[in-house]
Amino acid sequence: MSILVVGSVAFDSIKTPFGEVDDALGGSACYFSTSASFFTDVSLVAVIGDDFPQEHIDFLASRNIDLAGLQKSAGETFRWKGKYEYDLNEAHTLETHLNVFESFKPELPENYRDAEYVFLANIDPELQLEVLQQVKKPKLVACDTMNFWIEGKKKELIKTLAKVDMLVINEAEVRQLADEPNLVKAAEIVRGFGPKTLVVKRGEYGVLMFSEGSIFSAPAYPLEEVFDPTGAGDTFAGGFVGYLAATRNLEEKNLRKAIVFGTVMASFTVEKFSLDRLREIDYAEIESRYKRIKLLTDFADIE
Amino acid sequence: MSILVVGSVAFDSIKTPFGEVDDALGGSACYFSTSASFFTDVSLVAVIGDDFPQEHIDFLASRNIDLAGLQKSAGETFRWKGKYEYDLNEAHTLETHLNVFESFKPELPENYRDAEYVFLANIDPELQLEVLQQVKKPKLVACDTMNFWIEGKKKELIKTLAKVDMLVINEAEVRQLADEPNLVKAAEIVRGFGPKTLVVKRGEYGVLMFSEGSIFSAPAYPLEEVFDPTGAGDTFAGGFVGYLAATRNLEEKNLRKAIVFGTVMASFTVEKFSLDRLREIDYAEIESRYKRIKLLTDFADIE
Repeated sequence: MSILVVGSVAFDSIKTPFGEVDDALGGSACYFSTSASFFTDVSLVAVIGDDFPQEHIDFLASRNIDLAGLQKSAGETFRWKGKYEYDLNEAHTLETHLNVFESFKPELPENYRDAEYVFLANIDPELQLEVLQQVKKPKLVACDTMNFWIEGKKKELIKTLAKVDMLVINEAEVRQLADEPNLVKAAEIVRGFGPKTLVVKRGEYGVLMFSEGSIFSAPAYPLEEVFDPTGAGDTFAGGFVGYLAATRNLEEKNLRKAIVFGTVMASFTVEKFSLDRLREIDYAEIESRYKRIKLLTDFADIE
Repeated sequence: MSILVVGSVAFDSIKTPFGEVDDALGGSACYFSTSASFFTDVSLVAVIGDDFPQEHIDFLASRNIDLAGLQKSAGETFRWKGKYEYDLNEAHTLETHLNVFESFKPELPENYRDAEYVFLANIDPELQLEVLQQVKKPKLVACDTMNFWIEGKKKELIKTLAKVDMLVINEAEVRQLADEPNLVKAAEIVRGFGPKTLVVKRGEYGVLMFSEGSIFSAPAYPLEEVFDPTGAGDTFAGGFVGYLAATRNLEEKNLRKAIVFGTVMASFTVEKFSLDRLREIDYAEIESRYKRIKLLTDFADIE
């Protein structure tokens, strides 16, 4: 079953302690859809400028991503410039040029409107809601957001969250959204806004998933080389929602497997700049890391 | 089998966003030995001043802790004053008065020298070595340390580590000791100093254990009320080493169970000031939380 994703396609210029790259392919929708494409078909809604090269379009198409919803506007593609210090958990934004993204109005091609699985990447919550209104009868709606919208459009965000089944956000943003420092309490407050499942991303510390009467903790895959964390969260979401859509099973047990697949996908993305590592891997490598996370977390019951 | 622990007995004055307390019973040896006492016998080596009240001695004795090695010196007991903001992961030290601890020379009573399990809490690495030299034939030596010794006595610390089987320290200290930002690489460097097992404490993010060819990740128990994190690390170590000594089994599978028991013990300590929560619990509550951590981390294999 295919997933509909709406988000950004961008050029990222990034400096980390290990290297730098200019105008590399990035953006939430690119990371999400490439990651999800290892599990299922993806239909993408985003906007690019007239400077966007054919090779990137060819790459996304080669991943079986439906690009009918990829609008092309006059002007430049969204650009982000950032850097990381040795503490790779925190991105420092140097420049943001929205460019064609500033006037982006997501419009769904007719064949997208039957989508059963929807991922609203981190964009204006009002646009997220507009997308949802165009989808006929989604089985699962997941979304992301960020501090910028929590600060500037909290009312609109909460209106969107009322229509969302799963929220996938960073730990600090859960606390901010709930205005509560304790994470367990904050998670309950945020679940009260609508999303019955809350997935809390904690960077190198992994993921906590809060659902009705259950908490699941998954570690990040321990890596000897973390090169660039950009896109890790969206790649995680792509593996998570991708696995759910592929298996069409929203039971807790399957949600947990999906979380681990998401974690595995993110572990590849951070090993190289941009989508470069995702261009190399195959499904066998994904399964191999899944099994290693199983070994990493396994311990015996009390007799 | 009983454990020998050497460390501090202290009075802590602590302020957190949730309350404050003055001159409460604390110190690494108190937290460790009280926690370990739920699993096995403990022999304590530490120093107190002549201001140390009988009620605290009675409490430790009531936990079956052997106090023959608890020296009493003229002067005041070690005092620490600290506070925490909402980010409970970081303690801010306001005052440290070593008092009688300044001239502490650990001397082991004769019957302590046969100890098979030894925990060297966070004290001067030269004193840690002196203690080790008094123990005849330990089966397991575990130790803790801190940034203060890594900065000021690195050479002495490395000399001690060469005689140690397990090192239990904070994440930032692993990186500092190895002079390497990547945790996986840093762990290998530190294991090269001697301890074949490295246990990395990550506060609310749980624990990573590095041993030969294996990494184990355990989450912290998610709590709705974290009242005061003081002593969490030593309580963790007490549960960890306590379970190992009680079961006399150092295989990887048992190490992992011990890590989870340590995590459970720490989760109790942080719920109240001082040792107050440990005074209330029983072994059934410990087992209950162990099972809940099992549920928290459980996910299915790939078919």
